[in-house]
Amino acid sequence: MGLLDRIAECSLFNPDRYVHFFVANQHVGYTEKKFASRLIDSSFSPTFLSENGKLHVNPRLKTPDERTKAVEKVLLKLREMGFVPGWRNEQYPVVRRFGGKPLLSVERAAVSLLGVRGSGVHLNGYVKRKKQTLMWVGKRSHLKPTGPGKFDQIVAGGMPIGISVKDNLIKECWEEASIPREIAKNAQSVGVVTYLTERPDGLRHDMEYVFDLKLPDNFVPMNVDGEVSDFFLWPLSKVKKSLAEGSDFKFNSGLVAIDFLVRHGYIKPEDPEFVGAALGTNAF
Amino acid sequence: MGLLDRIAECSLFNPDRYVHFFVANQHVGYTEKKFASRLIDSSFSPTFLSENGKLHVNPRLKTPDERTKAVEKVLLKLREMGFVPGWRNEQYPVVRRFGGKPLLSVERAAVSLLGVRGSGVHLNGYVKRKKQTLMWVGKRSHLKPTGPGKFDQIVAGGMPIGISVKDNLIKECWEEASIPREIAKNAQSVGVVTYLTERPDGLRHDMEYVFDLKLPDNFVPMNVDGEVSDFFLWPLSKVKKSLAEGSDFKFNSGLVAIDFLVRHGYIKPEDPEFVGAALGTNAF
Repeated sequence: MGLLDRIAECSLFNPDRYVHFFVANQHVGYTEKKFASRLIDSSFSPTFLSENGKLHVNPRLKTPDERTKAVEKVLLKLREMGFVPGWRNEQYPVVRRFGGKPLLSVERAAVSLLGVRGSGVHLNGYVKRKKQTLMWVGKRSHLKPTGPGKFDQIVAGGMPIGISVKDNLIKECWEEASIPREIAKNAQSVGVVTYLTERPDGLRHDMEYVFDLKLPDNFVPMNVDGEVSDFFLWPLSKVKKSLAEGSDFKFNSGLVAIDFLVRHGYIKPEDPEFVGAALGTNAF
Repeated sequence: MGLLDRIAECSLFNPDRYVHFFVANQHVGYTEKKFASRLIDSSFSPTFLSENGKLHVNPRLKTPDERTKAVEKVLLKLREMGFVPGWRNEQYPVVRRFGGKPLLSVERAAVSLLGVRGSGVHLNGYVKRKKQTLMWVGKRSHLKPTGPGKFDQIVAGGMPIGISVKDNLIKECWEEASIPREIAKNAQSVGVVTYLTERPDGLRHDMEYVFDLKLPDNFVPMNVDGEVSDFFLWPLSKVKKSLAEGSDFKFNSGLVAIDFLVRHGYIKPEDPEFVGAALGTNAF
């Protein structure tokens, strides 16, 4: 048991279970075979097609807008049939590459079912007391559809279409931890963490935009949107111990925390897990 | 022209030009075909063997010590024949994975000829003036065998066998920039940068241990070992401009500098090159 188990949990991908999914002749993801067969069911209008064992959005749909509308219809139908749980009414971009131009947008709940790339923002909130670094850790509400009751960064959220990364971060800072804009805007972009892994609710092939924010020593986070049940201020030794001992952190938040420990010199080259930790937080 | 060209220059690998190289049945590298054929030349003792188009160290050599001695003999012979330029008398470990246990050690000049993994230490030395960050940049001596006259981190060096990463860094800090131990020991380990790329002198499949060090504002580096011809203190805007405009930085030092710009928030998610820069500095 150790940090590398957290990384292994973010690298579970068996390609045999999936078909390649294409939009406009561009490979955008891996769709679970059963869900793919539902998408191409002939009782729907021909929005999805199968060709040489690959799943395609019908190439007759030429524009992102046309594709978005047609795909939405199919997803709503599948939702009615109970195959798209956790509908959120949030549109997420479908891209060829992380950070690339959206080829269409889809309901958030369908991202992992379609097996397309997703992205989000994660904020490491920390304070310095004397020479010690302490990290704010959130405990996710038991009502969250993903990772209920798991530990998390002080702020984390998905990246919907139509908002900039920094604006999304500032919005989430307020909703999740009541960090005011004047403080949140000082958050420093420090890189990305990526993973490709099978979760109970589908395939997650995500890139998280990672930010660090040194908070005032007297700042106490308070949740606004009901998504966090509690906050704790932990020394990094406790963060590391929790990560090494089991899956108490949400899978991707664990990766982001390990990345923080590496970047802040808390896992050193002499640590047998250093190389695996440093390489593993950005494996895909 | 841009930052992503620097990353592309660190991702040049055509597997057709190489054979897989094995030690103790473990894949340790890619050896250029011409050099591999010299290693298995029958006029040498049978230290290297070819099997199914793969290059092997003779499995009769059971221990790292036996392999090291036998391989050294072959390399010295090839050196005499002019096929191993730039002999340094420094032993480097040959590993299955970065940070793994050495299966043997070889002369530094042979690392890129054998196409085995290498590692090194790179230090970003910076100062803060008011709110501006400035980075110390070294200009490599024109006499260096690799990257003569190129820009570099204030301190960078290879990672030979038998010394810890931190001790090696502290040693290089003194030799390359006269940074005393009391300051050098504060260098913070911040992660790794990796690449697999063809260079004129062979294949480089390296992992660089990256450190950041905030230097006193009045500190001025001075080279001790003749490997650096000059030092400059540049605002990050100038570092970025130089990286974007051409190959004035040594190939791997450019990657380390881009990683610094990403981690310190100087390349932001809104920058079209952000995702490529953040992902590309750790591509292999």
